[in-house]
Amino acid sequence: MDRDFAALLRAVTDDQPPRVWSLLVTIFGEMAQAPGARISGRLLTRITEEIGIKPEANRVALHRLRKDNWIESHRTGRESAYALTAWGLSQTRLASPRIYAEASLETELWFIAGEGAGDAVTPIAPGLYVSARALRDPALLCIPVAATTPLPDWVRDRVCDAKTIALAEALLRRFEALEARLAPPEALTALQIAVLRVLIVHAWRRVVLRAAALPDAAFPTGWHGPACRASVARLLAALEKPGLAALEAAVHGDRSG
Amino acid sequence: MDRDFAALLRAVTDDQPPRVWSLLVTIFGEMAQAPGARISGRLLTRITEEIGIKPEANRVALHRLRKDNWIESHRTGRESAYALTAWGLSQTRLASPRIYAEASLETELWFIAGEGAGDAVTPIAPGLYVSARALRDPALLCIPVAATTPLPDWVRDRVCDAKTIALAEALLRRFEALEARLAPPEALTALQIAVLRVLIVHAWRRVVLRAAALPDAAFPTGWHGPACRASVARLLAALEKPGLAALEAAVHGDRSG
Repeated sequence: MDRDFAALLRAVTDDQPPRVWSLLVTIFGEMAQAPGARISGRLLTRITEEIGIKPEANRVALHRLRKDNWIESHRTGRESAYALTAWGLSQTRLASPRIYAEASLETELWFIAGEGAGDAVTPIAPGLYVSARALRDPALLCIPVAATTPLPDWVRDRVCDAKTIALAEALLRRFEALEARLAPPEALTALQIAVLRVLIVHAWRRVVLRAAALPDAAFPTGWHGPACRASVARLLAALEKPGLAALEAAVHGDRSG
Repeated sequence: MDRDFAALLRAVTDDQPPRVWSLLVTIFGEMAQAPGARISGRLLTRITEEIGIKPEANRVALHRLRKDNWIESHRTGRESAYALTAWGLSQTRLASPRIYAEASLETELWFIAGEGAGDAVTPIAPGLYVSARALRDPALLCIPVAATTPLPDWVRDRVCDAKTIALAEALLRRFEALEARLAPPEALTALQIAVLRVLIVHAWRRVVLRAAALPDAAFPTGWHGPACRASVARLLAALEKPGLAALEAAVHGDRSG
């Protein structure tokens, strides 16, 4: 691996290799959402190797993903290829809009009061919640909060915990470092670009899916989610997504694809 | 006292003579808000006598009202006259708009969350209030509730207690009975009209000032406040307010006033 690329990888992973199972979920979300899309075992091995994951760890994680009904494997001759199951695809499609959005998907803020609001809302006090949408339960008081309504600090502080705030702040520093040293894409191979995209999306996914699905204005001062999201958008725009066929061709030694 | 008038009095008082101190507050609010207005001791005695209050009880209550700095007395020759003090007038003017309003004064509903909202708001759960207006404390979340937002029953039930609901329901029945048997005003003396007006206002005042200052839509099903208010407006319109001078003239035996 060339030293410049290794430095880029370090910038985005902070030298902490991600959990393999979770990283594979990101890879399938990034590369295999198209109908009929399959990723060969060899391509998965090459991508994870670039990130510093041993082939054995990759195999174990693939096995677990199959057991979890997230992916299914297809055999063609001597080689296995992997695709999302219908369920894995539905889970992926649920999360993708939030991960890849270039602006917050949430434009509304609702205030919910009452018992039994469930898990889709963010608790801020006993019997009190904020949410990006109203709930249909007539026993719940659901009031839309105008964007002009000032939210007190104690409400915003309960929307996001300190750990998520810290994770976003650290991530923003890593993304800024990555943007600062990012080579022109023509200096990178398609596989390197794919690996960088996967790591960027994965790092952001771990933060954005921790955070409540609420408009940015509901978050406390010091929340760097929107800056991270903007950085992700710039990085992904700079690193144009390689086609799956081109990647397969590259790792199978066929440079014509 | 003629029998027809006695029946009217019974209809509005339900045969329960009001507490004298509180009734006098109503009388001063009804008759003595104009600048410089004074009510003679004789007129007060005649009004309270009509309602079944003994002169001694009237004197005791007047004494207490003076001690409470609600009224002050002025001596003219052998007779005393009473006026609201500046403080009594300010208290009276605070309450009068709600008592005499022909429609709810409150057009807004706000939802307040947080600690330290004070007494001007209606608690519906710990740390949770409704109010007819926003509070300026930036630590409080204040959200305007649109008239189209459905309020759950548990919210409306906490806006008004069962006793106030029951009082309004009983009062509406008495007002309806009074409206049904109300004689044409020309069959009543100015003093009788003044007495009826005082009793109507007093009975309504005891209910409306118990109820939260919130728009009608915030109240529970079964709240008859708006119907009472409408009945009060019809009754007061039918019983045109006699001038204070005319009443004084009548009780002082001078029929020319």
